[in-house]
Amino acid sequence: MNDKSCAAAGAVDEARLWRRIMDMAQYGATPAGGVNRAAFSREDIKARKTLITWASEFNFDTATDAIGNLYIRRAGAEADAPPVVTGSHLDSQPKGGKFDGAYGVVGGFEALEALERSGVATRRPIEVVAWSNEEGGRFQPGCMGSAIFAGDLTLDEALKATDPEGVAITDALRETLESTPDIARRDMPFPLAGYIEAHIEQGPRLENGDRTIGVVSGVQGLTWYSVEVFGEEAHAGTAPLRGRKDALKSAISMVRALEELMHDESDTVRFTVGRFECGPGAPSTVPSHVLFTVDFRHPDLATFLDLGGKIREVCEANARGCDVTIARTIYSEPVVFDPTVSNLVRECSQALDLPHMDMVSGAGHDAMHIAALCPSGMIFVPCEKGLSHNEAENATASDLAAGAQVLAASLVDLADR
Amino acid sequence: MNDKSCAAAGAVDEARLWRRIMDMAQYGATPAGGVNRAAFSREDIKARKTLITWASEFNFDTATDAIGNLYIRRAGAEADAPPVVTGSHLDSQPKGGKFDGAYGVVGGFEALEALERSGVATRRPIEVVAWSNEEGGRFQPGCMGSAIFAGDLTLDEALKATDPEGVAITDALRETLESTPDIARRDMPFPLAGYIEAHIEQGPRLENGDRTIGVVSGVQGLTWYSVEVFGEEAHAGTAPLRGRKDALKSAISMVRALEELMHDESDTVRFTVGRFECGPGAPSTVPSHVLFTVDFRHPDLATFLDLGGKIREVCEANARGCDVTIARTIYSEPVVFDPTVSNLVRECSQALDLPHMDMVSGAGHDAMHIAALCPSGMIFVPCEKGLSHNEAENATASDLAAGAQVLAASLVDLADR
Repeated sequence: MNDKSCAAAGAVDEARLWRRIMDMAQYGATPAGGVNRAAFSREDIKARKTLITWASEFNFDTATDAIGNLYIRRAGAEADAPPVVTGSHLDSQPKGGKFDGAYGVVGGFEALEALERSGVATRRPIEVVAWSNEEGGRFQPGCMGSAIFAGDLTLDEALKATDPEGVAITDALRETLESTPDIARRDMPFPLAGYIEAHIEQGPRLENGDRTIGVVSGVQGLTWYSVEVFGEEAHAGTAPLRGRKDALKSAISMVRALEELMHDESDTVRFTVGRFECGPGAPSTVPSHVLFTVDFRHPDLATFLDLGGKIREVCEANARGCDVTIARTIYSEPVVFDPTVSNLVRECSQALDLPHMDMVSGAGHDAMHIAALCPSGMIFVPCEKGLSHNEAENATASDLAAGAQVLAASLVDLADR
Repeated sequence: MNDKSCAAAGAVDEARLWRRIMDMAQYGATPAGGVNRAAFSREDIKARKTLITWASEFNFDTATDAIGNLYIRRAGAEADAPPVVTGSHLDSQPKGGKFDGAYGVVGGFEALEALERSGVATRRPIEVVAWSNEEGGRFQPGCMGSAIFAGDLTLDEALKATDPEGVAITDALRETLESTPDIARRDMPFPLAGYIEAHIEQGPRLENGDRTIGVVSGVQGLTWYSVEVFGEEAHAGTAPLRGRKDALKSAISMVRALEELMHDESDTVRFTVGRFECGPGAPSTVPSHVLFTVDFRHPDLATFLDLGGKIREVCEANARGCDVTIARTIYSEPVVFDPTVSNLVRECSQALDLPHMDMVSGAGHDAMHIAALCPSGMIFVPCEKGLSHNEAENATASDLAAGAQVLAASLVDLADR
């Protein structure tokens, strides 16, 4: 870490960063202390305008693109050099917390301000981005802004989405773009020199290991299945068990068999049945329909392919006389980041004397998509009890500031390369 | 079977019975061919008025009581002798069929008309009753009219019920009673000499065994439990499986353990988990809450007590780190009918050359409550594929008529004792 990086890290202001995160958390604040800020909602628009207001204090350039990704740019000595980019997202889960996503955007802005206040000039421009609709809570799929930027999703495909109330994404996006008529419209993608995303860990490993910084080497593979089981209604008091087509019984067999498939002494496998619906739902009627989801994640490609490839056959083998339809709704293989950024994040953490550990991200992030375009990486900071996607999500001001210091130092280094 | 019984049975008219059942099925008819006739609804009132209109053609006395049970009386030679009673209920499940309940009332009326047309006089009066609110679909508990009549439920307790729309049962009942201002009001209970209820089987045994008449020896015991499991929400991608409190996983363990407990080579046990709800229901969130119901039935008291008594401990033993609350919401021990009526039904079936079999009722019926007051029994007839509580519920005109013949003959015999 050279003097410029040290100066930038030293100018990070813990209180200012915390205050800005709390400012953002007002938009969509829930009574239980969380945040409900759906993509392209009024609350999301207010958060975006707030970021633009902050940028205008420093005369940073602001721009947006066709899917509403929002860019704040601090100029570099070489105006046309591909920028180094940092950021994350401003939308939240319906019952989300104050830090998921918002930290990466506000922490990125804190790094920009730290450079500005410490008078550090860089060769390349540095940009903060707020990617649109990472959570996918209102419009599917999630990671929409970064996926379109990276060419993993077409704009046309994304613009077919409607929310559960029937609002078309095209209408919500138009309203969002029209709310900031004065900022530039930009084509995407454009060349990037590097990408670093700061984020709360959303898991307990940093806290349990008493570390401040997670040096993220990649993102585990993720696949979702939606399984529907069709049986036959019958009277609970009269229908003999032997002739029943009990959709619940079959679905439970499937889930138990999947649990056995996914058994892993090393506790690396992430296997979750999060949604499980059973109908018609009368105590004295044998269920005729079950819908359940499978969320399976693993960091190792071979294991991911092996176990993921068996989900369908395990469900089919346990249908117990019912009909079953199985759809794979999400599939993304493990991502391994180019070591350029992780090496740099590790060095900066060491230089700043911050306890750190290497780790693979358990959750998906925008960095997953950007990793295909340029050297990319992530910086994790601890969150209380590992809780995230939860209104009780919490983090300490000092950990958040430590992450922003590492980010500022790493951005300066990358931007001078 | 003596000449009077034969004459009464011979006067049963298959076409008239079928036409009347179809007439009743108009009130609450659903597009899918079923019936939605909630207790004390406008549809229920229309069905009651129809029954009263039929009775008036023969100058049968009509009366009702404080809970709206409706009585049609054909006089006997001894005016004050306790009557022999037959009947069932006119209310239906929300997606019910044309025959459940209605057959017992309309079939009972057909028996009365057969006696009338064949000029058969009996010592005792014979009455047809339509018990109020058997299904319990709108106001809980079900079997309300017969339970109050038998003293198993107090009128005060029953009158606390409200329906899911917030309508008080007192208002719905008042409207029902006021809709038929001209009929007598009667105290309950009054002495009964015997009770016979005709009903579709609601199961497949008669159809599978190619029999027309089920001679019902009793009603199996029934208990319901409501089980709630409380875990902890966590992020599917990051929370290690070992530290999770996954409410779904625990609930599934409980259901599987109950399945093992209830395993029965003789296929006599009826064990159903009909309702199973899981929250918050997001694919990437570990479930924190499950609610499921247990419906357990058995005809043998010792087995009923043994298995029923283990449900709570089996659930608790499989909580796997989650909290669990278990409430018993329904409990009724097996009922064995006095053999007087079943012997008579068997003899009449034989005399009428109708293939028959002895059986225990799988479902609960009003007869369950009346059995404590007088010799009671039931006559079952086949229903297609055993389907009931289903809009596709069906039965043949000839089977229904056969049941009414056995009923008419049995009533004459009992009413002359």
